[in-house]
Amino acid sequence: MVNVDTKRFEETFRQYSEIGQTENNGLHRLALSPEDKEVRDLLVSDLEGLGLDVRIDELGNIFARRKGTDPDAAPVLIGSHLDSQPFGGRFDGQLGVLTALETLRTFDDEGVEHRRPIEIVNWTNEEGSRFKPALMGSGTFVGEFDVEDVLARTDAKGVTVEEALEEIGYRGNEPCEPCEEYHSYLELHIEQGPKLEEDDISVGIVEGVYGMAWLEATIYGDSDHAGPSPMYSREDALVTASDIVGAVRRLSNRLASDVVTTVGEFDVSPSSINVVPSEVRFTVDVRSYDDSIVDELVTHVDREVENACEREGTDYELEEIWRIPHTEFSPMVVEAALEATQEMDISYRTIISGAGHDASYLNDLTETGMLFVPSVDGKTHNEAEYTEWDDAVNGAKVYAETVKRLAN
Amino acid sequence: MVNVDTKRFEETFRQYSEIGQTENNGLHRLALSPEDKEVRDLLVSDLEGLGLDVRIDELGNIFARRKGTDPDAAPVLIGSHLDSQPFGGRFDGQLGVLTALETLRTFDDEGVEHRRPIEIVNWTNEEGSRFKPALMGSGTFVGEFDVEDVLARTDAKGVTVEEALEEIGYRGNEPCEPCEEYHSYLELHIEQGPKLEEDDISVGIVEGVYGMAWLEATIYGDSDHAGPSPMYSREDALVTASDIVGAVRRLSNRLASDVVTTVGEFDVSPSSINVVPSEVRFTVDVRSYDDSIVDELVTHVDREVENACEREGTDYELEEIWRIPHTEFSPMVVEAALEATQEMDISYRTIISGAGHDASYLNDLTETGMLFVPSVDGKTHNEAEYTEWDDAVNGAKVYAETVKRLAN
Repeated sequence: MVNVDTKRFEETFRQYSEIGQTENNGLHRLALSPEDKEVRDLLVSDLEGLGLDVRIDELGNIFARRKGTDPDAAPVLIGSHLDSQPFGGRFDGQLGVLTALETLRTFDDEGVEHRRPIEIVNWTNEEGSRFKPALMGSGTFVGEFDVEDVLARTDAKGVTVEEALEEIGYRGNEPCEPCEEYHSYLELHIEQGPKLEEDDISVGIVEGVYGMAWLEATIYGDSDHAGPSPMYSREDALVTASDIVGAVRRLSNRLASDVVTTVGEFDVSPSSINVVPSEVRFTVDVRSYDDSIVDELVTHVDREVENACEREGTDYELEEIWRIPHTEFSPMVVEAALEATQEMDISYRTIISGAGHDASYLNDLTETGMLFVPSVDGKTHNEAEYTEWDDAVNGAKVYAETVKRLAN
Repeated sequence: MVNVDTKRFEETFRQYSEIGQTENNGLHRLALSPEDKEVRDLLVSDLEGLGLDVRIDELGNIFARRKGTDPDAAPVLIGSHLDSQPFGGRFDGQLGVLTALETLRTFDDEGVEHRRPIEIVNWTNEEGSRFKPALMGSGTFVGEFDVEDVLARTDAKGVTVEEALEEIGYRGNEPCEPCEEYHSYLELHIEQGPKLEEDDISVGIVEGVYGMAWLEATIYGDSDHAGPSPMYSREDALVTASDIVGAVRRLSNRLASDVVTTVGEFDVSPSSINVVPSEVRFTVDVRSYDDSIVDELVTHVDREVENACEREGTDYELEEIWRIPHTEFSPMVVEAALEATQEMDISYRTIISGAGHDASYLNDLTETGMLFVPSVDGKTHNEAEYTEWDDAVNGAKVYAETVKRLAN
């Protein structure tokens, strides 16, 4: 049974967390920023410290391979991402990369040999905060995005991905694609929800990811003066949109127990104190593990928007802007993780991920699985994001043991 | 019976409307802008063309007096404002000033003599779009605002009222206060609501203005990830705020038939597609002619905010930011307008104004009244604002006749 060096692991985490650290002990390390360069340099130096050759592809994804005893065996890929949300937390992504790094270091310490090569990866721009789309590095790697298109994407200041990569010196020469067939991919991540903590469990073995749909609606009313316009004469876009927010919330109680529904973006015009709002643009996010439930949710949202507009006399546009079916991770990887966890006597449960991860795209390419560790209070994407260190260590132990099993 | 020169009146209106005219035949003539200077210069020139002495006070309010036969009699004040909303309409304010100008011209044409002096006024910054507060010139004139405080107010670029007045050459020497007692004030304005048009009536004789209260609420929830956060764990500020928008709308059906309630400003944070909104700030505007109903409405809003937050587990701040009791205009002025209208056989009704006007402040100072002319479709504060020219002429006739009566 492998055993990680908990002191080194924690010290490494502390060291990496200083790069882009915020006043409130969070992390502000946007993709391809100077902070991202600094943390990449540290990772490259740590990997070279293990005697590994580091490769950078044309999108800045960083790879390094630990040899297996059978050089012809398909390698196991492990890792996550080092970029953060704006004023996000220290655990999202970073913990997965450092767990993979600690796994390689532990194998060195303990002289662990494995048949398959093990390749560590840091994916470029998972968050999508500075450049769209999110999951940029992994999505391009598996062929979901076109590399030229992605390189031309710009941030809010008009800087392209290509320019930003060159600026920080991470525009590599290798093509952003698999150079050979992989055996499997394993990623550790924080749960970003409350379930593991509620069940007092250290490790979640992720069986899949919710399917989801994103809709964008615009309600068109009429901007009247809040005083002289009698109620009967109004077409209030905000009253309509609020009605729909309530309906979308109620939808989450129906159809299936795992449904989550959210109105996230919400912009009101003219947003003036004594003017009846004439336009509201908002988004609806619906998710379930069952794709047919997602279909039904979209139909319901459509009907609710239509009905609310009919009640208020407003008009609307409604568009489905994104749809992704649910992901089922590899039963083989899940089984390997289950065996490792059971043998180590660490508390675990299986879980479905509500959010997409780099692993969602890798699942298109190879046998893929994920491990979750608890998020205190389910908090994520903000500076308060936290995971108890004991849980992080338990996660790393299970991760290293599972990687060892996958590589043999 | 006086009779306005309809051709000249229309030509004058067309000429003034060209200053700050928008592509869609609206008006963009913010207070103390170059366009405001240009239209002020035209008004001053037109008043001087009538042989009147023009006075400018320290806030840029423009006055000119037509002599009465009794120089010691308290004068009648007539007018409105020439500034517009951003991309607003041609009728709001401007029609009132030009009706007052046409009244003076008609009196000249027809050799109308009157006992009392008649003073025309153009109030500075009625709209409050560029500089707060609205009703700046009239409010300061009656002593509601402090002149030094008002002169120091800034626009979005940091320009003070004083600098803007000096820039356009309308920082006058006279103090912004009544130099003597006035007999009365009469203002013509567009209704800004649909009632006159619905009743197919030319002239509204305004008996008063609604009382009103403005509240500002902020709802504090928690920003969770839209995927991994189960519904039961959420504290969604937008769900709470939408609940309140619905409750505020329902309040308008209760307590009294004239109640209007509006949520106008509405800002959602972080407004991100896959994040549960953590904060919503919004305003509530409640109005009724009955001040005790306004009291009750405020109590109801308070209770609805509290209840909605309790349901969702969110916190809130709620503040009353403005309250103004209803205005009852002078029965003497109303009576004069009623007699004039009846004698001229022009269709009319009495009406309560939903919006505040310069006349609301003048009512604190002297016997005050207003006339309304219809707004097509009740539209106002946008480029589509329109009044049928026949109605504008009927309004001007009643206005001139009422002014003649007040001045005798």
